[in-house]
Formats: sequence, C-alpha cells, structure tokens
Amino acid sequence: MSGSNSRSIDTKSNTLVNCKTILASSVAKSYISQIKESVLGLSTNETPLLVGFLANNDEFARKYAEWTEKTCNETGIRFELRECQRTELENMLDVANYDEKVHGIMVYYPVFGGSQDQYLQNSISVMKDVEGLCHTYRSNMYHNIRFLDPIKKEQKCILPCTPLAMLKILEYIGVYNKILTEGNRLHGKTITVINRSEVVGRPLASLLANDGANVYSVDINDILLFHRGAGILKKRHEVSETKVKLEEALAKSDVVITGVPSQDYKLDSSLLKEGVIAVNFSSFKNFNDDIKKKASIYVPSVGKVTVAMLERNLLRLYGYQKKIENL
Amino acid sequence: MSGSNSRSIDTKSNTLVNCKTILASSVAKSYISQIKESVLGLSTNETPLLVGFLANNDEFARKYAEWTEKTCNETGIRFELRECQRTELENMLDVANYDEKVHGIMVYYPVFGGSQDQYLQNSISVMKDVEGLCHTYRSNMYHNIRFLDPIKKEQKCILPCTPLAMLKILEYIGVYNKILTEGNRLHGKTITVINRSEVVGRPLASLLANDGANVYSVDINDILLFHRGAGILKKRHEVSETKVKLEEALAKSDVVITGVPSQDYKLDSSLLKEGVIAVNFSSFKNFNDDIKKKASIYVPSVGKVTVAMLERNLLRLYGYQKKIENL
Repeated sequence: MSGSNSRSIDTKSNTLVNCKTILASSVAKSYISQIKESVLGLSTNETPLLVGFLANNDEFARKYAEWTEKTCNETGIRFELRECQRTELENMLDVANYDEKVHGIMVYYPVFGGSQDQYLQNSISVMKDVEGLCHTYRSNMYHNIRFLDPIKKEQKCILPCTPLAMLKILEYIGVYNKILTEGNRLHGKTITVINRSEVVGRPLASLLANDGANVYSVDINDILLFHRGAGILKKRHEVSETKVKLEEALAKSDVVITGVPSQDYKLDSSLLKEGVIAVNFSSFKNFNDDIKKKASIYVPSVGKVTVAMLERNLLRLYGYQKKIENL
Repeated sequence: MSGSNSRSIDTKSNTLVNCKTILASSVAKSYISQIKESVLGLSTNETPLLVGFLANNDEFARKYAEWTEKTCNETGIRFELRECQRTELENMLDVANYDEKVHGIMVYYPVFGGSQDQYLQNSISVMKDVEGLCHTYRSNMYHNIRFLDPIKKEQKCILPCTPLAMLKILEYIGVYNKILTEGNRLHGKTITVINRSEVVGRPLASLLANDGANVYSVDINDILLFHRGAGILKKRHEVSETKVKLEEALAKSDVVITGVPSQDYKLDSSLLKEGVIAVNFSSFKNFNDDIKKKASIYVPSVGKVTVAMLERNLLRLYGYQKKIENL
C-alpha cells in the first residue's frame, strides 16, 4: 500500500502528523489488475471497444480523453476518440448505439452546457452507457434497484463512475464495516458531501444513504439530509429538508467529501471532527494543507479510481452484450 | 375573430397603424370548443383527470395552477392539485404513474431548479406526460418521429404545450401555407426564435425547421441555424453553427418569436423587417410599444393557447389509455 506512513513529518509545518494520506492509485491498483486479467481471459474475437466523443474545445476534456485512452490501453481495452461538432453529436451517438462493434460510449462534457447536455446523456443506449448517467440507471440508483432484470438478477445496473469510485475508496479505507450485512455497512456513519450535482454529489449522497449512512448533502442553497430513517428500517433512502447549518453537519461527520469546482474554495479544517476522514473529488484542492493535522485519513483525489470504474462498467456491459456471465 | 381592426389608432402615439393584434384567446377558442365537445361525447364512466403537482412556494406557479384548474373545469376536464414537499415529489409521481384513475400528470416547475428538474420530467410515465417533456417525446420530436407506434400509427407523440401552441398560432395567422404538402408548409419562411431553453425555445426551433422553415435560434451565447437544407430535401432538421449576427438574422426574418424571461429585455423594433410577424411568449413584454408600427401581425402572449394544448394532450393520452380512437 502506498501513501504516507502512519506517523510522518508534515513538511510544511515541520510537525508530527498521524494522518494517513491515501492515493487513488493505491485503491485503483487491484481493480486494474482484475480488469487486465478479465480482458486477457476473454475468448471473444475482439477486445472491448470504448468510444469517447469529444465535441468541444475544452482543453481539460481533451486531456481527460487522452488519459482515458492511456489507462484503457494499459488494461487491454481499446479506446477510440471520435471528434465532431456539437451539432453532429446526437447523430454520431445514434450511429454508435446501433454499431455492434462499439461496446461502450461516453461523452466529454460540457457540450452545449446546461440541460441540453442531460438530453445527450439520455441519448446513449442503456446497453452502452458506461458512465451510468441515463435516466434508467439514475432512477434505479435512487430507488435502490440494483438489477436491470430484478427477477433473473443477471444484469447489475451501471453506477456513475465517480460516485462508484467513492464507494470503492470508502470500502478500501474501512468506512464500510464488513461485519454488517451488505447494503447496511454504513449504518451509524454520518457523512457530509459538499456538492449536489446530478453527476456526482446527488447520486453519491443517495448511494451512501442507501447503504445506511446519514448523509448531509450540501449545496450553495441549502443542506438536505439523505437517510433511511431510525434503525435504517427503510429499504431505500429518503430525503428530508433540514435547518442544520454547515458547521453542525461537519461537527457530526465521520467522513467529509468535497467536490467544489473552484480554486478559491477551501474548507476550514477547524470545523471538522478530530480524526475525520477527508476525501476530495474536486480537481481543485478543497481542503487546506492543515487538514493532515485534523484528519485520520486524507484522500486528495479520486480520478484514477474513477477511470478504473469506467473500465469496469465497460466490461460489465460487454459481458451483457456478449452474454458472458460474471464479467 | 377578436383582435384590433386592420387599421386602427395607436392610442399612445396617436398615429394610424395597420398592425393586427391577435389575442391568444381568439386562437384558443375553436380548440376549446372542440375539447368541450369531445369531453361531452365521452361514453366512459369518468371524465379525464389531470393531476398537477405543486412542490414549491412560487406564487407564479400557484397562479398558473389555479388558472389550469379554471380552464380545465370550463371544458369538463377534472383537475386536481396535489401539494407536497419537493423531497416527496418523486414518490408522489410514482404513485400517480400507477394510478389508473389519473390520466395526465404535470409538475409546476421549478422544484429543485437546474438539472434535477429534468430528472423529474423523465420520472413521469410516457402514457401520462401531458407536457411532453420526457426524453421519449423530446427525442422523437427532434427526430421528426411523429408516432409512438411508427408502424400502426395509432398513437401520435405528445408535443410540449408552448411550442405546440406556437405552431397553432402560426397556422391561425396564416404563416403555414396550406397549399404546400403537410410537413413542408413553412418552406421559404425565415424565423428567428429568441430563447433556446429545453422546454420551449429549442423544441420550437426544431418543430419549425422540421416543417420547412429556416430558423435562427438565438441564445445568450450564440446563434444556431435549424434547417432542412437546400430545397428542404432532408427529412428532418439539422443544426448548423453560424456566425450570423442578431441584426442580420432579424433583418431576414418573416417571423420573430421572443421568449426572454426578463422585464428589462426589449427588442429594438428598428431591427425588424417591415411587416414582420411578431410573437411574444415571455410573461414579460419583449417587444417595445412601437412594434405595431413595424409589424403586420402582433401576438402579445400565447398562454391561453398553451393551456388549450395541455388539455388536448390530456385528451389524446386519455384516448390511448381507454383505447378510444381519434380523441
């Protein structure tokens, strides 16, 4: 396991800290070897093909595309970048939806920005939606419906990559308690998620609450509580309005997850519980450097796990398309 | 036909104007009598029930709900307003989706605002979506697919109410040329639509272009051209980037449709073609008072036609549910 030793020198302040920094690469490692092995073991004629669509001039999107290609190739997955005008994208998606040689489809957003991009998310076939952002997957996720075929239970629903990556990270760092029944393993945990986007924050809060946590979902307007009620007796999470202030939510939280897309946003470490688990999924550092003096575990970024989950989703969909079990 | 005489005195400037003002109520009239007649003629035990969901404290939304109720009742359609917390809405929609006694469902937006509201739009059953905002209807509309069952052609797709209302208004005021084949009746017309929301502006531009017009779709960032190509030889519209400036688009436009949700926005009438047809669907007046000196026809608002279309959509869905043909 990489990451800093359990007791190390904080180089900036030159004081001893007990915080353990966990790198996404450490968490991603075992998933990547599993994916490699699965791809090597395929008896089909063709390896899975992921097609990414780039229809903007966003330099960050292009870098992400290049990075997807690199990591896919490392595991034996083929990646093809298709560039087009934003006005052509919907047609291009349709073509890929019906092309048997394409096994997974993703889009580098923003394309038009705003709600037209959500229309595009819904234009990808359920069978090829590696990002899990179409309405079917999102609705099933919110309703804690885990299979596309609830009777046969052969096709697990695809979960969106970053929220899924977060669950895997929380499993890895021991937030999920394995002594509890699967599906209830966050019972007793309080978690704050600062971000309520439709792509990461809201799905993440729902998934954590479905697994038994009390989740404060924070956005710029208000704080909502995602929970399964007293004794987590409900089968799936509910959402309640709350008057709780951010300071109160943070003071109660065992885990604080940040995803504020701004360079200027820094969460005040003094508001956090001693020994908190701090996870940042923003591409900007949302925690101050002094987080290591307060936290027991600090995860500065999650990107590498996200891409591993993208590949894992692709393999799963490839399995459904090729009728290979347990891929 | 109500509306001002063809030659009247502009009371403000005290000059003669030839502009004909057409009120939405005049256009709605014949649709409302048709709906009344259809409801009276039903041989079913129950009249159609439209359920509206109000999950905000927006006074404008409440007024719109009261107004829907009033106009529904006038035509014999039952309307029921269900109020709930925004956090309960998705469950309430699910209940109504499965309730055979509910024939149509609509939501008064905004609920959460932003893309979470689009998630809600997709949570309404295709068979009860009177507003036509779920992905199935929108995707079919953009692709010019006019039936839910393209082989039997028994179930026409639902179109979103305000864009549909606009088509009916343009038919009423003679913009659609009946000598042309249905589906091509806007051939040769140039139309500017100032608003590209997912709810009105973009669907409207697409529908007009599918019917053969060249449509400049204007939003705050850019202008896109929706069209079916030279000789409208394409079966459905395409969208092209364009460097055309608003002034150029307006100077070419036979019809200018505005929907800017701001009290401060006023379109400069001097930019418009002499004899232009000016239609405003914003709840604010987007045209200056001097529009009547420039336009041949001025439609200051469309709301009453929108509600008529809502009722028409409900009747259509009721027909599908009860297996009554041509309702």
